[in-house]
Amino acid sequence: MESNDGNLNLPPIADIRLRKGMPVAELVRQLKNSGFQTHNIATAAEILAKMVNDKATIFLSFTSNISASGIRGIITDLVKRKKVHALVVSSGALDEDIARAKMPYFQGTFEADDAELGRKGINRMGSIFVPNECYEYLEEKMAEVLKKIHNTSTSHEFTVTELIRQIGMNLDTEDSFVYHAARNSIPIFCPGITDGAVGLQLAFFQQTHPDFRVNELKGAIEAIDFAISAKKSGSGKVGAIILGGGIAKHHTIISNILGGGLDYAIYVNSSSPYHGSLSGATTSEAKSWGKISENARDVTIYGDAAVIFPLLIASNDYFFE
Amino acid sequence: MESNDGNLNLPPIADIRLRKGMPVAELVRQLKNSGFQTHNIATAAEILAKMVNDKATIFLSFTSNISASGIRGIITDLVKRKKVHALVVSSGALDEDIARAKMPYFQGTFEADDAELGRKGINRMGSIFVPNECYEYLEEKMAEVLKKIHNTSTSHEFTVTELIRQIGMNLDTEDSFVYHAARNSIPIFCPGITDGAVGLQLAFFQQTHPDFRVNELKGAIEAIDFAISAKKSGSGKVGAIILGGGIAKHHTIISNILGGGLDYAIYVNSSSPYHGSLSGATTSEAKSWGKISENARDVTIYGDAAVIFPLLIASNDYFFE
Amino acid sequence: MESNDGNLNLPPIADIRLRKGMPVAELVRQLKNSGFQTHNIATAAEILAKMVNDKATIFLSFTSNISASGIRGIITDLVKRKKVHALVVSSGALDEDIARAKMPYFQGTFEADDAELGRKGINRMGSIFVPNECYEYLEEKMAEVLKKIHNTSTSHEFTVTELIRQIGMNLDTEDSFVYHAARNSIPIFCPGITDGAVGLQLAFFQQTHPDFRVNELKGAIEAIDFAISAKKSGSGKVGAIILGGGIAKHHTIISNILGGGLDYAIYVNSSSPYHGSLSGATTSEAKSWGKISENARDVTIYGDAAVIFPLLIASNDYFFE
Amino acid sequence: MESNDGNLNLPPIADIRLRKGMPVAELVRQLKNSGFQTHNIATAAEILAKMVNDKATIFLSFTSNISASGIRGIITDLVKRKKVHALVVSSGALDEDIARAKMPYFQGTFEADDAELGRKGINRMGSIFVPNECYEYLEEKMAEVLKKIHNTSTSHEFTVTELIRQIGMNLDTEDSFVYHAARNSIPIFCPGITDGAVGLQLAFFQQTHPDFRVNELKGAIEAIDFAISAKKSGSGKVGAIILGGGIAKHHTIISNILGGGLDYAIYVNSSSPYHGSLSGATTSEAKSWGKISENARDVTIYGDAAVIFPLLIASNDYFFE
Repeated sequence: MESNDGNLNLPPIADIRLRKGMPVAELVRQLKNSGFQTHNIATAAEILAKMVNDKATIFLSFTSNISASGIRGIITDLVKRKKVHALVVSSGALDEDIARAKMPYFQGTFEADDAELGRKGINRMGSIFVPNECYEYLEEKMAEVLKKIHNTSTSHEFTVTELIRQIGMNLDTEDSFVYHAARNSIPIFCPGITDGAVGLQLAFFQQTHPDFRVNELKGAIEAIDFAISAKKSGSGKVGAIILGGGIAKHHTIISNILGGGLDYAIYVNSSSPYHGSLSGATTSEAKSWGKISENARDVTIYGDAAVIFPLLIASNDYFFE
Repeated sequence: MESNDGNLNLPPIADIRLRKGMPVAELVRQLKNSGFQTHNIATAAEILAKMVNDKATIFLSFTSNISASGIRGIITDLVKRKKVHALVVSSGALDEDIARAKMPYFQGTFEADDAELGRKGINRMGSIFVPNECYEYLEEKMAEVLKKIHNTSTSHEFTVTELIRQIGMNLDTEDSFVYHAARNSIPIFCPGITDGAVGLQLAFFQQTHPDFRVNELKGAIEAIDFAISAKKSGSGKVGAIILGGGIAKHHTIISNILGGGLDYAIYVNSSSPYHGSLSGATTSEAKSWGKISENARDVTIYGDAAVIFPLLIASNDYFFE
Repeated sequence: MESNDGNLNLPPIADIRLRKGMPVAELVRQLKNSGFQTHNIATAAEILAKMVNDKATIFLSFTSNISASGIRGIITDLVKRKKVHALVVSSGALDEDIARAKMPYFQGTFEADDAELGRKGINRMGSIFVPNECYEYLEEKMAEVLKKIHNTSTSHEFTVTELIRQIGMNLDTEDSFVYHAARNSIPIFCPGITDGAVGLQLAFFQQTHPDFRVNELKGAIEAIDFAISAKKSGSGKVGAIILGGGIAKHHTIISNILGGGLDYAIYVNSSSPYHGSLSGATTSEAKSWGKISENARDVTIYGDAAVIFPLLIASNDYFFE
Repeated sequence: MESNDGNLNLPPIADIRLRKGMPVAELVRQLKNSGFQTHNIATAAEILAKMVNDKATIFLSFTSNISASGIRGIITDLVKRKKVHALVVSSGALDEDIARAKMPYFQGTFEADDAELGRKGINRMGSIFVPNECYEYLEEKMAEVLKKIHNTSTSHEFTVTELIRQIGMNLDTEDSFVYHAARNSIPIFCPGITDGAVGLQLAFFQQTHPDFRVNELKGAIEAIDFAISAKKSGSGKVGAIILGGGIAKHHTIISNILGGGLDYAIYVNSSSPYHGSLSGATTSEAKSWGKISENARDVTIYGDAAVIFPLLIASNDYFFE
């Protein structure tokens, strides 16, 4: 890395040279000294390579919109191939994965007559249109699985992670990260389960089955224990890829405090840090809390996770082995 | 409202005229036909006035950064004066309210050596610096209250809302919305309780008191029942002021579906809708889901809740009666 | 300013206490230790007070959307009362001020059938609707003024600032900052004049009057000379309030390099700094270029200029004397 | 394109499937039905293909940060291969292209001690560090070229476009779009030339050469005439790719009004439309003004031009022929 600056010892900005048929990985490498967020994307790809080489335990955190989008396919493949080791998601992210097993969501538009959509049984999530049928299927599937679990389990108390695993074992489609996570023993942590369709089905089931219990406190301990165990086994390194914000992001990092903080962290934020929101919070800020280790390799990318995550994953052959 | 346009029947853009000693309320009124988000702020003030005149049941939803900031004072006063009727918050919002009872947080900067801050026992939240002592106090207070509750209750199962009420009854300072909510029977709904310090204390308490249970499924039903009851009593109107995004925002609106959707809704979003995130989702989108009623009066303000919420509240004398 | 932190010597976060009839100025003072951007707003109000007390020469920079909105009223009053000393604007900002002399713009919506609006002779700027009649008036007024100037001036070469002054002297309405700037000898610098309706009228006039010349190079020197003169006269201090981004922002700061950089600077940015854009650039960055003096008092507010500028101006009685 | 929705006739959201060595073009195609902005990126690639197939005249507009970054390499190659037909840029975009001919800029960081950087002769543009030497070179080069032009031209009045062409002919490096534009007769329109280093050199030159004139009014007419001619020749179609905002964006679209509006338009915006800024304005809004034709194919991508532009160009083999 030649530097001409004399004082600062920094790499020069390098013009990008595209070519016909250029692979994504080659483009990402060229972004390294291109400035601004492109630099951060290439840096994230390097950190990801470090995680992989270090055989780090990898948390992947994401939000419901990611689960509703085509990005779900990438996540499903990563889970199927055991390339990530724990998922931390918002409740909606579960809903969208399970509900899409029935029929697809649709590529709509941001501009719509929302009252009219509602009357047609279409729910809008940005530019993705969600048919009511999908949620009706989710309700039926949940009722079916919960009845089965309730009838066959000796204990009637569960963690969310265990319930999600059982749901995953009972899904009929492979186009689902919940399906593959269940089969590959990849835990799915979902701290705010009651704030979505899956959670409401649990609540309704309890109304008719008063002995049914979900122990979310135990679930929180499980997430912490998972992080601590990761620190004590294998390479002892823990990394996280955090797409978007909200409770999934925070739960990933808070669960890693007691283990000593993440060793690798990649945030992709569409929010700005300047209003103090968690969604806009940086990896640097997390170091003051001990959520990310003081000596971690980390990067905050200001950008759109749905655009950037495919670039990161496509840039590393490991994810396709 | 004179209009010269002939075809469109719209109000003219009106130049703002400031004056010495101008009250906030007068400024907000002038913003009405000033364009862009200023129009939306004045519209929100009008919707708020409608909520008040209608004696609507008012949900107030906010995030942890709001609770850590000076905006907490406004919320505390609203709760103290019973001007809002339910709070829906992220777990961090509880943490910051309770922890600040010990000693203040500090006005720091966004640019800081975060590793060094961490070594000094300071946690950074944007530009607010949070001393470790505050969280240590929270842990002690939680242990004290939980022991007391556990020893005196016949049932060992609680909802989060009930636990928060008990914590509020045991706080030593009036500078706290948790304190006043408890005394004024204003429920605090907190769907993702395990994702914060209060929730972790509950989890740790369970480890030493295995019979201790938090039933979050029941908590979700309570929030829904609260919304349905509001629809059946008094004016039958329900409104919400939603500051920021995340689980608090979503839980407010999902809890209102079964009641028929919110009749009034004010969102203040710092995120954009264009990535499909819940934090950037609009009131219009919520209508397709039935979270906001088709005929509701609603507005989405794209802006900073910490700047805009004071303008909205100061614009209405009702909140100071 | 009491501080309990021992190590950091920072002011505590202070809860905001609103009250009935509260003046804007009192609210802004309370924002000081409220965290995040509210802190920056109150800091900007303090810097503005310093500028005023120092009798600094004050540049005010803004964009076309501000000129189209109700905020124009505040600017017009500031110019009328000689409270600012130079304006730096985009060409559109001139257009909107002059065109609104004919008839008002309208408070429309962001969501519109734009093709249909176009057919109705309505141009949309965000949620402000601009009738074609306004631009037709601008064309006539420009033709009239240019003919008059051309016939009466001995030289046929002008700077933009001089032409704008002459236009201002010939406007028929006092609801215009161009009108008052002309009468109060407040220069209006507009570096990209050809990128708007006023500029195109100049170009069309030249086609029929080949000896007509606008010397923009001389205009750039005038802006620099104005800044240098300000440094050599009175208090020798120069400040700037910069609303939004684009060429108006950059021209304000580049014109101050040779004078030694701004002594006071307030930016209100709605763009983020993370993509390297000028619109999102910070006051800190400007110090590396010498556009703002190393020892300046400066603040970058991340927020909406149309909301924040009224707060800043209403917070200081000086502007109403 | 199969659709299961019955009512809406929309394409289903399709999970993305990455693979080892995947070309950028294949990824972009898969983004089409992936939701949110990924859909818009793939749509932009389709519109770009239409422009190319239609042999449309293509405007490319961009800002100074793009010129300072590695993206310049892509632009340079497009200009070298005559794949775009006119550039519209801010003055800074010229500065950065020319100044980088001396020595490279550097990949720095957003967080820096800006006063210290300034003392070291480093100017910060986001995370790109610009050595003073580069600007000193630009000054020398400008002085040399202007002297040469002044001595050899019979007329002493120029348009900016002509001056830039002459500068381009005199550059010593091929790593420059100004260099190749000059040789390939691709006009560079720069409406706000005085707001940058190149423009200031013109102004300083005029101070010592009083007969030197830049006729920007004529420049504005040239841009309009170029657009009108494009409509009358070849396919009669005109398209634009507009990266970022500011005067370059606006000048591209305003110059196309008289020709009947753009037939194809791709905006990549990092600003939001909700504050009424030009930088955040949408292609839809431009239709109400006639800047984009009512029947145009157009898309607004909310995202980072430095990330998205490489995806668009790499997705089409035409650009590498």
